[in-house]
Amino acid sequence: MLQRKVILAIADGVGDRPHPLLNHETPLEFAKTPHLDKLALMGISGMMDLIGSGIPVGTDMGHMILFGYQPHHYPGRGPIEALGIGMEVQEGDVVLRCNFATVDDNGIVVDRRAGRIRQGTDEIADAINGLELQGVKVYVKPATEHRAVLILRGAGLSENISDSDPKAPNDGCPYQEVQPLDDSEESKRTASILNNLLSKFHAILSDHPVNAKRVEQGKLPANFLLTRGAGKLARLEPVTDELNIKGSCIAGESTVLGVARLAGFKAITDSSMTGNIDTNIELKAKLAIEEIAHSDMVLVHFKAPDLKGHDNEPLEKAKAIEQFDKMVGLIAQGLPDNTYLALAADHSTPCEVGEHTGDPVPVLIYGPSVRRDRNWRYNEIDCAYGGLGHLTGNEFVRTLYGLMGRVKKLGN
Amino acid sequence: MLQRKVILAIADGVGDRPHPLLNHETPLEFAKTPHLDKLALMGISGMMDLIGSGIPVGTDMGHMILFGYQPHHYPGRGPIEALGIGMEVQEGDVVLRCNFATVDDNGIVVDRRAGRIRQGTDEIADAINGLELQGVKVYVKPATEHRAVLILRGAGLSENISDSDPKAPNDGCPYQEVQPLDDSEESKRTASILNNLLSKFHAILSDHPVNAKRVEQGKLPANFLLTRGAGKLARLEPVTDELNIKGSCIAGESTVLGVARLAGFKAITDSSMTGNIDTNIELKAKLAIEEIAHSDMVLVHFKAPDLKGHDNEPLEKAKAIEQFDKMVGLIAQGLPDNTYLALAADHSTPCEVGEHTGDPVPVLIYGPSVRRDRNWRYNEIDCAYGGLGHLTGNEFVRTLYGLMGRVKKLGN
Repeated sequence: MLQRKVILAIADGVGDRPHPLLNHETPLEFAKTPHLDKLALMGISGMMDLIGSGIPVGTDMGHMILFGYQPHHYPGRGPIEALGIGMEVQEGDVVLRCNFATVDDNGIVVDRRAGRIRQGTDEIADAINGLELQGVKVYVKPATEHRAVLILRGAGLSENISDSDPKAPNDGCPYQEVQPLDDSEESKRTASILNNLLSKFHAILSDHPVNAKRVEQGKLPANFLLTRGAGKLARLEPVTDELNIKGSCIAGESTVLGVARLAGFKAITDSSMTGNIDTNIELKAKLAIEEIAHSDMVLVHFKAPDLKGHDNEPLEKAKAIEQFDKMVGLIAQGLPDNTYLALAADHSTPCEVGEHTGDPVPVLIYGPSVRRDRNWRYNEIDCAYGGLGHLTGNEFVRTLYGLMGRVKKLGN
Repeated sequence: MLQRKVILAIADGVGDRPHPLLNHETPLEFAKTPHLDKLALMGISGMMDLIGSGIPVGTDMGHMILFGYQPHHYPGRGPIEALGIGMEVQEGDVVLRCNFATVDDNGIVVDRRAGRIRQGTDEIADAINGLELQGVKVYVKPATEHRAVLILRGAGLSENISDSDPKAPNDGCPYQEVQPLDDSEESKRTASILNNLLSKFHAILSDHPVNAKRVEQGKLPANFLLTRGAGKLARLEPVTDELNIKGSCIAGESTVLGVARLAGFKAITDSSMTGNIDTNIELKAKLAIEEIAHSDMVLVHFKAPDLKGHDNEPLEKAKAIEQFDKMVGLIAQGLPDNTYLALAADHSTPCEVGEHTGDPVPVLIYGPSVRRDRNWRYNEIDCAYGGLGHLTGNEFVRTLYGLMGRVKKLGN
């Protein structure tokens, strides 16, 4: 079988709706995108529902699909975050997303983000990392700013427990006691151990030198760990093993890197990949070309369109798209002959909504011997007339795997 | 999440095929439909298979789908008819559609419709309503003309029984003994009780004053109840609860009103809604605008195209479509800014066939920030080039729910 390679460039949340500030065009229509449109001219395009018509998906779920998984493989946000920041997750681990927070003597949450603490979280995490209670060992690792991930490792733990985080906008409410969410002994035990651990954490962190210094400086101390989104990692076969390929993912965002690790892809990042409009597109394009030399599939993620959609800034979203266009142009320039360049998005984030929606997103495949269609523009209106038609996320990635020569024949 | 509303106008059976009497155009192409075409110009369109390619559906099933259910939720025609005429259906009830019929002394069905009896059915029904036999209580309510609904209420009943109705065109055949359709005790008992009840009904009705008078006048007596389509109501969550919306349905036809009640929609009707071409389109449009003010979704049903398709009257069908066009124009005139106006049909009823077929039907969505496509005509040919592509009934309604902001995000 002829085997080829794919570079898939993902514009996070790029799908949108016509907007009055853009002459009633979508940001993709409005933006100057010569490189995307050239690929549309030379390639084949279509419209994709990540899961199904009208169903909004999160960035994690959208990338699960784009990395080749089915919706029911979704392991919950905790495990994805842990993988994203490079923690090792073992089978049976209960993984929780956390905030370092400020709690007063009566258990009232003064600030869910401990004054958006940026420095000292490594030391604070060190003070509780490795604690053990009733056979359960604790692993804590900070993520960006006030965020962290907590892993409980031990026999007979359950992820079916409630959050201690009272959730925004509930500053001024007490933190919640963790409750079992079913009648199993495992859930009861896990909730009880976690409640004891949270008290211990509070005692240790209240006396921590980093916090003593913060209080001296008039800052809020990071003296509590608010937990949410407990999950376990299902035993998933890495997509790379299933397809017998090597994969790489280039991204600034830890969620995307987490899904990439889950799927068996090499996760590549750099501090200049900011996850915003000022991200280092030259480096991303350069790495994509370097990686495809020894990989079969490279995913390059570009976050900014999603942020501008959430912020309802259509002109800024169009600018972000123009940066994405430049990045794709650089990749196209260095694209090897045996490699497809594909475009997709993980979901729509229409400016007028400010949230992910279930509107379909445009997709495109350019490369060797592709069946060119009649469409020559990459956007939500024109790609609806593309030769790929309307397809689901799984259908789209399977189309790519098929072009790569990696899908097993059924029958003989 | 941004939440919006939808008015969905349904032209029953509007889908058709090119017809020689219409210059080989379909009735939708042939009819003058300025309002439908304006919505096509300003909106996005597509083609819909209610369930799947080539599969014809009944009006009840088609509406089940349009109200948001899956095909396997279909409870049988009996329960839908019962809800349609405002009967209360309880869990465990076996519900049957019936005809008041004329049977001679040998059990031969002389007329399945008792001379299309129109008056006196309330009194006749009263004579058998409330009867009890072996712990089973009988509820009978007349519908239009010779039609009625029979409910058997009691413990341990089964809907898996055959029809006593020999079906058209079998006048002159004996009525059928009801048989259990499986080996369960429940089915055997239900069949036996119903056979006994039918004999009792016959005895009571034969002596009824309404029938005595009919015989005097040379009319056929309504002395028997032919039963068919036994069903039980599955415990279905109302769509309105699932989506957390308020819904209203405006229709003249009891089947549609029954499905509406099942789905948790307020069922609105009026005697001037005739279910034919002379229906009160001004009232329907006025009510649609009034209802959407305090509802999230309003379905407006228009029956006439289906009737003209069944009757193989393509010119009349085109006229019916022009009435539908006027109704839609009136709704569009009063449409609030936050509301989509969508068009659909429950199935095709091609004139040349005179029956429901599995030909797909055109659909359309017009409204705030919709992704306008290149199509400007609402019919079976042009909508195949619309931006929605080809989709199933469930995909279409989920698209609407997505635009309404009522579909839960999967992932984070």
